[in-house]
Amino acid sequence: MTSEFKYYFEDFEPGHMVEVQGPTVTREEIVEFASKYDPQPFHVDEAKARESIYHGIIASGWHTVALCMRMTCDAYLLDAASIGSSGVDQVRWLKPVRPGDRLALRMTVLEKKASQSRPEMGVVRHRWDVFNQNQELVMEMTGVGLYRRRNPGAPAAE
Amino acid sequence: MTSEFKYYFEDFEPGHMVEVQGPTVTREEIVEFASKYDPQPFHVDEAKARESIYHGIIASGWHTVALCMRMTCDAYLLDAASIGSSGVDQVRWLKPVRPGDRLALRMTVLEKKASQSRPEMGVVRHRWDVFNQNQELVMEMTGVGLYRRRNPGAPAAE
Repeated sequence: MTSEFKYYFEDFEPGHMVEVQGPTVTREEIVEFASKYDPQPFHVDEAKARESIYHGIIASGWHTVALCMRMTCDAYLLDAASIGSSGVDQVRWLKPVRPGDRLALRMTVLEKKASQSRPEMGVVRHRWDVFNQNQELVMEMTGVGLYRRRNPGAPAAE
Repeated sequence: MTSEFKYYFEDFEPGHMVEVQGPTVTREEIVEFASKYDPQPFHVDEAKARESIYHGIIASGWHTVALCMRMTCDAYLLDAASIGSSGVDQVRWLKPVRPGDRLALRMTVLEKKASQSRPEMGVVRHRWDVFNQNQELVMEMTGVGLYRRRNPGAPAAE
């Protein structure tokens, strides 16, 4: 049997880290995302943003999350037997993301658990630490990913 | 003194609910969002999505969140003295969102707290319950919003 994917549930071990460099975030992108999904003045209106507590346009927190999601897709998720996610916990937006910032994401596997009820899958809990180009932590998040198992039904502790 | 906004910290009371109807989610939108931010096959590739456990294209969970963010903006947030958010907890994606689904969001204020260190602002914790057109709960989330106070420095219990 050949493996369809590079990474399965078995390949995510607690402590495993993946570091990904993201693209530079542009003003146009920040305004475009926010105009569609989060058109608060400090995300879309330069003049009002300057008068706000942020002193300039900042990215919607959801835009930062979306950019990080894409970074994980490019780094490993599209090569993995991912079957989605049931949710995330503790998204923390710690510092504004501004035009010209370059994001870097560190994904750390926290724990994993084979499903008892669905032997073909397992749950991997991970943390994202997201930094800007000044090594300032701008966001953290913990969440879970669901993955198919290379060996469905094998003993839960791999 | 005239009020610049319709809603301030003082106007969000625990138990207060806002219900918002959203637009119908289209296949084009689902694929467009996911192609940019979450290009996993079950979000962007109809043939692969049909073979997946979802039996068809589903929206990225982050797309669902972004659509809900826009619904809250249109319903009240753009009329509120919002100064952003420090984070969210417990996003739960409970059922897939599919092309043709129509979302409805119910926002409930859970608790509020005037800031001790920054008398001009307060923190409001809220829950989102998101339903599809069949009244199935597709997503829940709790999070906080930061709002300016109409009466900065007034006693914390309004």
